[in-house]
Amino acid sequence: MTQAERRHQTRQALLEAARSRMDAGESFDSLSLRSVARAAGVVPAAFYRHFASMDELGLALVDESFLSLRSMLRRAREDGLPPEHIVHRSVEILVEHVLAHRQHFAFVAGARSSGNGVLRHAIRNEIRLFTSELATDLARFPILREWTTEDLQMLAGLLVNSMIAIIEAILELPTSGPAGDPRPEALKEFVRLAEKQLRLPLLGVPSWRSIGVKETPAG
Amino acid sequence: MTQAERRHQTRQALLEAARSRMDAGESFDSLSLRSVARAAGVVPAAFYRHFASMDELGLALVDESFLSLRSMLRRAREDGLPPEHIVHRSVEILVEHVLAHRQHFAFVAGARSSGNGVLRHAIRNEIRLFTSELATDLARFPILREWTTEDLQMLAGLLVNSMIAIIEAILELPTSGPAGDPRPEALKEFVRLAEKQLRLPLLGVPSWRSIGVKETPAG
Repeated sequence: MTQAERRHQTRQALLEAARSRMDAGESFDSLSLRSVARAAGVVPAAFYRHFASMDELGLALVDESFLSLRSMLRRAREDGLPPEHIVHRSVEILVEHVLAHRQHFAFVAGARSSGNGVLRHAIRNEIRLFTSELATDLARFPILREWTTEDLQMLAGLLVNSMIAIIEAILELPTSGPAGDPRPEALKEFVRLAEKQLRLPLLGVPSWRSIGVKETPAG
Repeated sequence: MTQAERRHQTRQALLEAARSRMDAGESFDSLSLRSVARAAGVVPAAFYRHFASMDELGLALVDESFLSLRSMLRRAREDGLPPEHIVHRSVEILVEHVLAHRQHFAFVAGARSSGNGVLRHAIRNEIRLFTSELATDLARFPILREWTTEDLQMLAGLLVNSMIAIIEAILELPTSGPAGDPRPEALKEFVRLAEKQLRLPLLGVPSWRSIGVKETPAG
């Protein structure tokens, strides 16, 4: 193993140690740098070769959680599929991804409203970036070409809020067996509901303009 | 002061003590019964005359937070107003109520994803009840009369998810001055956005049936 590989491995071990402590019920804020280092099998001094502080480790966890999901969802939108297929594919990606990285998303859901300002701020920014990217992609649909930037951001925000609610609901689905996956029937019903909740606002799009126009004079 | 009044006053002092500790940045789970009793000016034994445990005090906080908001929002829907007025009035109520009870809602937002299973469960149930009540009220609108119960719950869930996102966003609005209220321009822009996000899905309602029908054979 090269030095770079070893370095990477220690970093991953530190992230993993923090994640599994949280998975066992501890909050991020209650984790000590010392206990995370110990769980990863390194001395506290070695921790500082990877992260300047526990907050910095938390930020790395936030990055990890968003990075792959964001790129996967973007790809679903780039395939030129009709909107209902994009919605279907996006829900599929959300469900698979959240179930495969349950710990990541439980951490983000908890940190979103935790007392740790650094992480809360980072997550809020990730969600904003996510929303902006979606608004940019939405602007390419012919039916949305005339929409104002504010309204595109509004629609993107609405869809992102629904996706956040979907992620939170996936984490709360009743599970079966020690693997902790949701029961297939419960998951299937949930997917149908999630798709409907993303589709309904899109059905409002063709009727939106008149209201937008009516509002303009009032400010 | 009668004994009942004194009793009520102590109870309120305990609730208030817990709220202000949390307002100062502590998480509910980190509060000790002893420190809450001390902050309320009573001995720990007196705490038990009001609550069997800290969890029970937490449940009382959850109850308080939801009770008045739920009844106020229901009243807005009972006045027989057209949907866009209901949306406008509901956002108004949400904003006023959350700003006036900032501590309550910050507590609920935090407890929703905290490690405390008792509170998480109670909040989830409150949100479910809230959603069911909204679905019942929605069923009375002529345009929704033919909707299945599942779809009414779906629409109610979508609107409730948006309301939760609105509440969280109100708590995060940039504030000005020591009073901690949001800046009027920021608040005004936010209210406009929130109303749009609640209205857009309702515009999708007239186009919904065809899709609902198409789906039936596929199961």
